[in-house]
Amino acid sequence: MTLVADLPTPAVLVDADVLERNIARMAAHARDAGVRLRPHAKTHKIPEVGRMQIAAGAAGLSLAKTGEAEVFASAGFDDLFLAYPTVGEDRGRRLLALSDRVRLAAGADSVEGAESLGRPFAAAGRRIDVLLKVDCGFHRVGVLPERAVETALSIASLPGVSLRGIFTHAGHSYLAETPGGVAAVGREEGETMTAVAGALKAEGIACDEVSVGSTPSARHAMSVAGVTECRPGNYVFHDASQVNLGTCSVEDCALTVLATVVSAPAPGRAVVDAGSKTLSSDSLRPQADGYGLLLGGEGRIERLSEEHGVVRVAPGRRLDIGQRVRILPNHACVVTNLHDRIFAVRGERIETEWRVAARGRVT
Amino acid sequence: MTLVADLPTPAVLVDADVLERNIARMAAHARDAGVRLRPHAKTHKIPEVGRMQIAAGAAGLSLAKTGEAEVFASAGFDDLFLAYPTVGEDRGRRLLALSDRVRLAAGADSVEGAESLGRPFAAAGRRIDVLLKVDCGFHRVGVLPERAVETALSIASLPGVSLRGIFTHAGHSYLAETPGGVAAVGREEGETMTAVAGALKAEGIACDEVSVGSTPSARHAMSVAGVTECRPGNYVFHDASQVNLGTCSVEDCALTVLATVVSAPAPGRAVVDAGSKTLSSDSLRPQADGYGLLLGGEGRIERLSEEHGVVRVAPGRRLDIGQRVRILPNHACVVTNLHDRIFAVRGERIETEWRVAARGRVT
Repeated sequence: MTLVADLPTPAVLVDADVLERNIARMAAHARDAGVRLRPHAKTHKIPEVGRMQIAAGAAGLSLAKTGEAEVFASAGFDDLFLAYPTVGEDRGRRLLALSDRVRLAAGADSVEGAESLGRPFAAAGRRIDVLLKVDCGFHRVGVLPERAVETALSIASLPGVSLRGIFTHAGHSYLAETPGGVAAVGREEGETMTAVAGALKAEGIACDEVSVGSTPSARHAMSVAGVTECRPGNYVFHDASQVNLGTCSVEDCALTVLATVVSAPAPGRAVVDAGSKTLSSDSLRPQADGYGLLLGGEGRIERLSEEHGVVRVAPGRRLDIGQRVRILPNHACVVTNLHDRIFAVRGERIETEWRVAARGRVT
Repeated sequence: MTLVADLPTPAVLVDADVLERNIARMAAHARDAGVRLRPHAKTHKIPEVGRMQIAAGAAGLSLAKTGEAEVFASAGFDDLFLAYPTVGEDRGRRLLALSDRVRLAAGADSVEGAESLGRPFAAAGRRIDVLLKVDCGFHRVGVLPERAVETALSIASLPGVSLRGIFTHAGHSYLAETPGGVAAVGREEGETMTAVAGALKAEGIACDEVSVGSTPSARHAMSVAGVTECRPGNYVFHDASQVNLGTCSVEDCALTVLATVVSAPAPGRAVVDAGSKTLSSDSLRPQADGYGLLLGGEGRIERLSEEHGVVRVAPGRRLDIGQRVRILPNHACVVTNLHDRIFAVRGERIETEWRVAARGRVT
């Protein structure tokens, strides 16, 4: 099977040219800013794509879950950071098993969490590197900046734990209504973190890593002096939400879904064979209607069932049963989690098939 | 690993007692109504659960996609219906390959779709059984009742196709605001279909199958005289949407998600390690806020990221880091699609581990 036209649908395609360009651009931004790039591999979950990022200069990869680290460690990656409040002695034991062959760090936002991770390391006469998660405004996880010193002091004194620095994620960049708003979130992200780093150092707490990052805010946050590392993820593929936010153009989106029109039951309504099991039911950010844009201008998906994408056909356009369409999804990271394999393409040729090796590794 | 307490989180659990009771109850409803039960296996995607449904009296299984039929045929199921507008000569070829060992039928809502399926069958001197999809009010796919005779006549005359009857899905039962509204949708579903069957027969078109079904509407639709088959899916597990609709109580929900509290960063806010990659971002039906209910009464999930479930903690309750909780998801069918395995439990003991064999089979 060498042609896109021969693929059964729905199928997830990645334009290899766009992917390479996205990887090179973000690597250049990090180089120019003088920060280490540690892309979040949750977007692709594919070792082959991670290797492209490392080859372009990334210092290592970020992941969320221990199970993802196990997959990437098995694939030969030797510098991984779990950018997630990692909790539990069972996870600590799994990370201890990995730490022989991988330079590993984990996130924590509580003394209890860090302590549970450190226990198996202490029992083995080892230490796990930990970064303290700081809440720079997203209000999901992380300690508030004014609580950072107190929590850092407690974590730094735990057995089996070595506090190395701080990290954050400006997820609220996805809620900004304008490009100016995104930039302001990014600058504040960087400034909040360098201020926290200063406060820690003033208390004699080591803080070698000041890690920031989200794809919309990355360029703005990494340009703040004192930031050492940036962890964007989505930029490898981009998606309709990034376009909507002004982070990129449609031409910068590498990941699309190939689908077939299976029903055209009423004027202005057509149904494709890609539903929430292919596109996910994630909404467009900032909040807006629709579940995917048809790239030929035929319309957009206005409702989803599991296997049905209900298209509102654009005025003056039509969709015929059996016709194939390319869909730009709202959120690329969750699309890769729904599929066992994706296809790297150049034009209409399939260049390679990638197994989404870390798909579904949620533990 | 024999105890739930030993499972890494997040993990999907199915209470085997509740599952067995749900299967027996729906089988009894169908027996009492004198209709064949053909459960939609998209909810579980697990051959072992399908065998329990057959053992309880189901005539066969419904599926959506050809890839799912391939999995269930390989597992030994020999009577399958693709309750989906199945389109494409490539799918027709795959179904032809299955039809030697499986009694197989496919859905169609267009002449073009049925014709594409029939082509490989005609070339092999065979016919594929087709049911015409009728839109009974959901307005997703399906021909409108007043167009059914015309489309049925055209499909019945296609080479390689044998039109056997009609089917529908009252998905709008999920939008009904009251139990009375759900019942009305179900009765109308049955009555619309028997009226269409009558119109077809009056034109001399064979219509041996009159197939209805959605979990909320099933009991109401199957009680209409003339309905021959019912295809509910979700009833095996149920979920928060069924509770919200009044279809069942929380005690009838077999599927839950076990998760761990990983962060408690602010009063009233806690975060569990189950996000949209575990629970999906499907909303509650009929439309309401929240992404999952904590069954211990600790609160509900009010925001999701991929690996974070942000809990609004109930007044007077608290959640501690490391604590485990059980979550009732909004939509069980999509949860099984996110996981490679689920655990059948009785009380706190794990009885067996099921592979979700048809997960991700979207083509």
